[in-house]
Amino acid sequence: MLCLVKATDPAWVEVALGNLDALLIDHAHCEIKAATNALSLASRATDGRMAERLAALAEEEVKHFRQVLDELGRRGLRLGLPPPDTYAAELRAIAHRTRPGGRSPRETLLDRFLVGALIEARSCERFRLLAEALAARGEGALAAFYDELFASEARHYRTLHDLAVEAIGSEERARERLAELAREEAQLNERLGAEATVHG
Amino acid sequence: MLCLVKATDPAWVEVALGNLDALLIDHAHCEIKAATNALSLASRATDGRMAERLAALAEEEVKHFRQVLDELGRRGLRLGLPPPDTYAAELRAIAHRTRPGGRSPRETLLDRFLVGALIEARSCERFRLLAEALAARGEGALAAFYDELFASEARHYRTLHDLAVEAIGSEERARERLAELAREEAQLNERLGAEATVHG
Repeated sequence: MLCLVKATDPAWVEVALGNLDALLIDHAHCEIKAATNALSLASRATDGRMAERLAALAEEEVKHFRQVLDELGRRGLRLGLPPPDTYAAELRAIAHRTRPGGRSPRETLLDRFLVGALIEARSCERFRLLAEALAARGEGALAAFYDELFASEARHYRTLHDLAVEAIGSEERARERLAELAREEAQLNERLGAEATVHG
Repeated sequence: MLCLVKATDPAWVEVALGNLDALLIDHAHCEIKAATNALSLASRATDGRMAERLAALAEEEVKHFRQVLDELGRRGLRLGLPPPDTYAAELRAIAHRTRPGGRSPRETLLDRFLVGALIEARSCERFRLLAEALAARGEGALAAFYDELFASEARHYRTLHDLAVEAIGSEERARERLAELAREEAQLNERLGAEATVHG
């Protein structure tokens, strides 16, 4: 479960499979947001290597977006405008709120990486649940797709986690802050309940 | 010159070469913005094929961003936060202002594609100027890079132009509006003068 404090409610996978079309559309938007976020972080990178890792991450997110678009195409679904993203918006607001004294630029960057890492961790957990449930239903191709993505999200989590450590220059400070945000994420996850979205 | 009404002031290439570091940093940000814009347009696509073409465009822009980042790395330059982008912001404002009666969703999409096409056309023209000037100075590798990008920007122009026609469902209406926006772009280009930026 990487850094996650609480597992997703098992009811989620049933809700998601019950409206797989909505889930896939939401998933496509998640990949767009992940790519855009990685590109925006690249211009905040503290050195060239950090920028390059974020650019590589963005490229992979765009590739995944194209793969999900293919799946939408096979199902005759249109992407459409993004649904509201309460989960990511709330996580960002929590990161801001839990530093009432304000954040230094390094702390802000740390938080952006850690929020990104938490989002990847939650996708990773849920893609595995999806992959298993799809395989059990005999939907082999889509199960294999989510199994691959599960592994990618785990790698992305690791990348963003390592960049967080680099941003703050201390493994301990990154770990402490991640633990704090992960507790908040668990409550948020519970509050949002089971919807046919990747994180909601 | 694709759809451009007026050629760039020849002084620009001297200004750009005189501050190649600033130009390269601005160029990297242009690729980020182009990728982000293509991803945002994908969710406004009227069908799956349009979304897929925009996703492919975004992937190519991210690749170019990585290439420019490599060049920044070789020069020991940091990307940093984006400089203000008066050119693109003004073009969007012009597209809005020149439809005083408001725009239908299709007209808004048409304009977004055409503004994108104009930006690509201007980059295309300027990358060729840069490639030639760099080659004349004996900077073969960077000249070859800009020569390749010149060809890519011409392709991107064509893609966005074709999508504009698709969005409005009429070649003639797309052509008329492009001509109108291209006249405005020429004036804007003149007004902004010669700076060490891709479009400014």
